[in-house]
Amino acid sequence: MDGTTSQGLHRPLVITMGDPAGIGPEIVVQALARRPELLGQVVVAGDIPSMERAHALLSGLSGGSLPQVRGVDAEDVPRLDGAQAIRVFQACGRHPLVPLGKIGGVAGRAAAECIARAAGWTLAGVARAMVTAPVHKEALAAAGLPHPGHTEYLQALAAEHAGVPVDRMPVRMMLSAPGLATVLVSIHVSLREALDSLSVDRILDTIRITAAHFSRCGTPHARIAVAGLNPHAGEGGLFGREDIDLIAPAVAAARALGIDASGPHAPDTVFMRARQGAFDVVIAMYHDQGLIPIKLLGLEHGVNTTLGLPLIRTSPDHGTAFDLAGTGQADPSSLLAAIDAALAMSAGTP
Amino acid sequence: MDGTTSQGLHRPLVITMGDPAGIGPEIVVQALARRPELLGQVVVAGDIPSMERAHALLSGLSGGSLPQVRGVDAEDVPRLDGAQAIRVFQACGRHPLVPLGKIGGVAGRAAAECIARAAGWTLAGVARAMVTAPVHKEALAAAGLPHPGHTEYLQALAAEHAGVPVDRMPVRMMLSAPGLATVLVSIHVSLREALDSLSVDRILDTIRITAAHFSRCGTPHARIAVAGLNPHAGEGGLFGREDIDLIAPAVAAARALGIDASGPHAPDTVFMRARQGAFDVVIAMYHDQGLIPIKLLGLEHGVNTTLGLPLIRTSPDHGTAFDLAGTGQADPSSLLAAIDAALAMSAGTP
Repeated sequence: MDGTTSQGLHRPLVITMGDPAGIGPEIVVQALARRPELLGQVVVAGDIPSMERAHALLSGLSGGSLPQVRGVDAEDVPRLDGAQAIRVFQACGRHPLVPLGKIGGVAGRAAAECIARAAGWTLAGVARAMVTAPVHKEALAAAGLPHPGHTEYLQALAAEHAGVPVDRMPVRMMLSAPGLATVLVSIHVSLREALDSLSVDRILDTIRITAAHFSRCGTPHARIAVAGLNPHAGEGGLFGREDIDLIAPAVAAARALGIDASGPHAPDTVFMRARQGAFDVVIAMYHDQGLIPIKLLGLEHGVNTTLGLPLIRTSPDHGTAFDLAGTGQADPSSLLAAIDAALAMSAGTP
Repeated sequence: MDGTTSQGLHRPLVITMGDPAGIGPEIVVQALARRPELLGQVVVAGDIPSMERAHALLSGLSGGSLPQVRGVDAEDVPRLDGAQAIRVFQACGRHPLVPLGKIGGVAGRAAAECIARAAGWTLAGVARAMVTAPVHKEALAAAGLPHPGHTEYLQALAAEHAGVPVDRMPVRMMLSAPGLATVLVSIHVSLREALDSLSVDRILDTIRITAAHFSRCGTPHARIAVAGLNPHAGEGGLFGREDIDLIAPAVAAARALGIDASGPHAPDTVFMRARQGAFDVVIAMYHDQGLIPIKLLGLEHGVNTTLGLPLIRTSPDHGTAFDLAGTGQADPSSLLAAIDAALAMSAGTP
């Protein structure tokens, strides 16, 4: 099915099960059990036995009846027939059930294969968007995957699909909580390295990628606030020059492209103002500038969206939680928020 | 009266009027009108004609009856007689009424004299604590004051009172919003300079000053969370060394002193955890790390507390708002929050 295109208003959303040794299979079952109206709109790219194990575990714990897990063939994936079951496509090679809560290459391999399948469908237009349950960096490495996480792997898959080098497909992370969205110029580097790597081009790329994402999702003139770097955005150069020398020129260049960007804004109030409705999204200059307000507004509803790729992908804002796997105590709220976000973002796409 | 000591359970709280050309006099009148039960507990260090002007303005706008402004002599300051009036001590030299909304040296001088008087009472134990309405940096400079703001001026006054050099009385800024308090290691410097100035001693000083403040206010074993500097507190050195090389040793040294400090904690979740009740206060490594979460939780209730001085001083978390002066539209909420905080902090003092 990969490589074919199946446009239509009712394309499915694909959800990957994540690392089968973690909470992924459980939270997928829980999310769909909690919101059965989603059943007719989604397909899970997963391992059927792992999903059935999660189902059995949760059925035993709840004592109630959960929607059944039903295996589907490739040709059934695009057929949204109002099913009241959890539709699962066997997206990875068959393998013995992995032990819960353990890092392992078999689990990492299965998780990676599910990502590849879901990305293939989404890039080909078979699926409207993809939502990824958590994977574990070390399990992916144990499986020999040369990518540390979802973002890098999806970037490689998308670049290959488009036939361009990976560095021609820059990505950015967007994090959202109720009432606030922020896109990060840099992520997992030291604060000092984040400062050293700031440049007009890097900031401008972030603004452009953000504007393109909002356009694609039906907001062509998103109000993009660009946070400053220094206290009070440098107070006219008194506390650092980056706001004047790097951020202001990037904002000016974006505006020259017709993007409704503004800033640099004082970092300590721009998130509050965005939350009050003044802006659609805030560009954050470093990891914690954006993550602190997002986490404060509610970890359980955090959604991570990868911008810059020719597909829509969201994920919950938490990890595999190996310590909770098999307990039925993992909270599916963030996954549900990611599903809702992906459905909303893809509502305007054909 | 300065220099004398008047201990007692019912010492007054002193409120400075701030810059008389700004919103200070108005918000003081509004705060006390809104909460008349405070009248018997406070005295204003101000300019009686400026306070009367604010009273007349607000009376005219509201059409209602506000508590009267009543001048008091020095000997009446400590006498809390259940007055239903706004008690004002003429704490600055008599001067013509200053124009509202204009930066000026006469206003700056008056504001500075009120601060000096309030600090004198508080250092001498006549007042239980002081709350300062906003002043303007440029007005203070126009008055020839060699200190850019409250903090530096109070530091100088306190050091003089104690007979020690200013550098022996390091201060830190604490900011509080409902459910969250944070103390900043550095404030108005560029982010790069904040990084360069981090040291074990500077972080340890901040922790010690914070612990001493909470002890004095009746929480001898405050749970002090120390935020990391880098994403995920450096993830074991992967994203920067400061968390390992500077912050962890400072936390260890504080613990060796019997202080309940912990960290470095991942910056993106420590504020959320503190708000959920895990900690009493968070030490922030730079201005925006602490300010972003505080402002997000509500600008109107933000309180600024100066730690490290032998007095309790709080202030609202906003400026003179010259554009609002005389309109009656300034919001006294943050000043009221500062008054409540000062009363609570000084409740346990003799």
